[in-house]
Amino acid sequence: MSPSRGFPEFEFAGRVRRAQAAMAEADLAALLLTQEADVRYFTGFLTRFLESPTRPWFLIVPVAGKPVAVIPAIGAALMGETWIDDIRTWPAPQPDDDGVSLLMDALEEIAGGDGQIGLPSALESHMRMPRATYHDLLNRFGPRITHDAGIVAGLRAVKSEAEIAKIRRACTIAGRAFAKVPQIARTGAPLDQVFREFQRLCLAEGADWVPYLAGGAGPGGYADVISPATAVPLERGDVLMLDTGLVWDGYFCDFDRNFSVGRPEDHTAMAHRRLIEATEAGRAAAVPGARACDVYHAMAGMLGVETDAGRLGHGLGMQLTEGLSLTTDDTTLLQPGMVITLEPGMPTRAGRIMVHEEDIVIRNGDAEALSPFADADIVVLE
Amino acid sequence: MSPSRGFPEFEFAGRVRRAQAAMAEADLAALLLTQEADVRYFTGFLTRFLESPTRPWFLIVPVAGKPVAVIPAIGAALMGETWIDDIRTWPAPQPDDDGVSLLMDALEEIAGGDGQIGLPSALESHMRMPRATYHDLLNRFGPRITHDAGIVAGLRAVKSEAEIAKIRRACTIAGRAFAKVPQIARTGAPLDQVFREFQRLCLAEGADWVPYLAGGAGPGGYADVISPATAVPLERGDVLMLDTGLVWDGYFCDFDRNFSVGRPEDHTAMAHRRLIEATEAGRAAAVPGARACDVYHAMAGMLGVETDAGRLGHGLGMQLTEGLSLTTDDTTLLQPGMVITLEPGMPTRAGRIMVHEEDIVIRNGDAEALSPFADADIVVLE
Repeated sequence: MSPSRGFPEFEFAGRVRRAQAAMAEADLAALLLTQEADVRYFTGFLTRFLESPTRPWFLIVPVAGKPVAVIPAIGAALMGETWIDDIRTWPAPQPDDDGVSLLMDALEEIAGGDGQIGLPSALESHMRMPRATYHDLLNRFGPRITHDAGIVAGLRAVKSEAEIAKIRRACTIAGRAFAKVPQIARTGAPLDQVFREFQRLCLAEGADWVPYLAGGAGPGGYADVISPATAVPLERGDVLMLDTGLVWDGYFCDFDRNFSVGRPEDHTAMAHRRLIEATEAGRAAAVPGARACDVYHAMAGMLGVETDAGRLGHGLGMQLTEGLSLTTDDTTLLQPGMVITLEPGMPTRAGRIMVHEEDIVIRNGDAEALSPFADADIVVLE
Repeated sequence: MSPSRGFPEFEFAGRVRRAQAAMAEADLAALLLTQEADVRYFTGFLTRFLESPTRPWFLIVPVAGKPVAVIPAIGAALMGETWIDDIRTWPAPQPDDDGVSLLMDALEEIAGGDGQIGLPSALESHMRMPRATYHDLLNRFGPRITHDAGIVAGLRAVKSEAEIAKIRRACTIAGRAFAKVPQIARTGAPLDQVFREFQRLCLAEGADWVPYLAGGAGPGGYADVISPATAVPLERGDVLMLDTGLVWDGYFCDFDRNFSVGRPEDHTAMAHRRLIEATEAGRAAAVPGARACDVYHAMAGMLGVETDAGRLGHGLGMQLTEGLSLTTDDTTLLQPGMVITLEPGMPTRAGRIMVHEEDIVIRNGDAEALSPFADADIVVLE
């Protein structure tokens, strides 16, 4: 059964209420949000238009009352369909004052003469506004411009059931696409063609769009997981990996599959089994109260490494990666409703690696699989 | 004939040389770049991995010598394949010092004790780093952290023939996909299915990926051009618009097509013709030495408006939109090699609009069409 698109208004009202409770505690009069996912989290404003970097978009969350949108006029109609009432627009882009005075007046009105204005500041907190605009804010508000005390990232990390349903749906779509990879990838197929065809499969299975696809192929493993595809054809003995972040209704999945081109070498088959065991160990360790680093160590132990395995997973939701990292030094406590990826990787031979990834949601008790967990036996392509 | 992927090293060396000449004039010891397109412009580092917001990526362009990359270790292998020699990495993400001290040491080394460090600061200059990291830089370097004098945006605005060839290729791919829209869109087809199928066409025709698709459908026009597709089926009398920014080798096209579902009403047919005339007027006006606002007025005059038509086009290249805007107040001078879109729009009836868009490159003499310019007669779907 497919979840419905969008969210009921009470979902947004609840997010704002929880933010405001934390803001009162942190003595913040307002949050100022500029990133697509942060703005969407409190409004439901969903568009691919922010692919265009030209115009800044601002959302002010006051410590009491509904959020106020300060946005380019081109977004007024779509923002008007959300639960937001107070929508202030300017005809962007304007080189001399691209919404800056409108924003500052709104902040003055909402935060008063001495209220603090919190912006996300930690990892991932890019400011989606011109650098000059940020300095205008610093000049006007001085030290009242401060950090958001981690409020927005903290809220976004714990998903509602409606959010989880969207991620599950994205995972289901990607799972169906992965199941059809044997139809598009075989010996002799150029990797870039496989990448194209796999994105087409994701769309055919129901993805709204495919913001992310990475992967690699090579004998017994691949060199990294971030390079674009080349036209080199698949050869027998290659391991092919495809890792997708596709989106359904604004929520991502992020998991991968490995394939053996032709019958796998023993070493490849064993490495795959090891990665699946590590994933299962991570899932078993991912219980409320465990720390992110505990899940890391559960997986790293299965991989035979302890301290240098990199990041073995991360938070997932409105962005491909968000929030916690499964590393040695992330002590974030897992809570029910957190959606994370388990992403163990290991070297297979000189300069080559294999990486596996699945998506889970933390529950009271055992974590729930959102992606269709892969079998221990690597899938063989012709 | 398809252009080759990547660029020869002299292309990057030339970009750096031109940047350095302007830096010397602006008294900048270094540029500090954080956005994907800016980093890629000087390095050739091409990956979809920056879809993940977790890790910052830094490139320092010194006033003499080759750029220095300060990047997460996960990018070392791929950066190592570019022309960059000096690649400094840290095992990101690290919550306490996510590359900050490594970056500051490199800046100190390169900019010396008193050199100025320029960051892009104008429109579109988002800083892709945590807010806290930016304040660390301000605390360490104080007013030596300054603007880049528009150097990076200025360089990127004028494309080389190799860059133009990639944009032309993206346009050709999208043109072939648009030509097949009658196969996927007809009366009764839900708009979200049309969006999916159109993205599949773009990939089938050779797109590497489809970062952007917008559009709309409705009787005699659509409400806006940024909303996601709904499941509402196309009906006779609807105008369907699809606007894509697909990518080939890291370069975008950005143009659209309108279609009439069934025989067009006279008003629709006339509006389409008017938009095509406005596009041609824009192309005729887009000559070296003309200002962006001159091209705006050439188009707005054909549309029967003068001052309130919004943005009727923009720069195009490594980002869906970049650089100049065809508005009343953008006085940027056109130069040969600038790639821009011509994007006239007009109201058709209460609350509805039609928008047309094509891509051109400024040449000595008449501008060259990069997208296959549409006919005056709107294409009719069954």
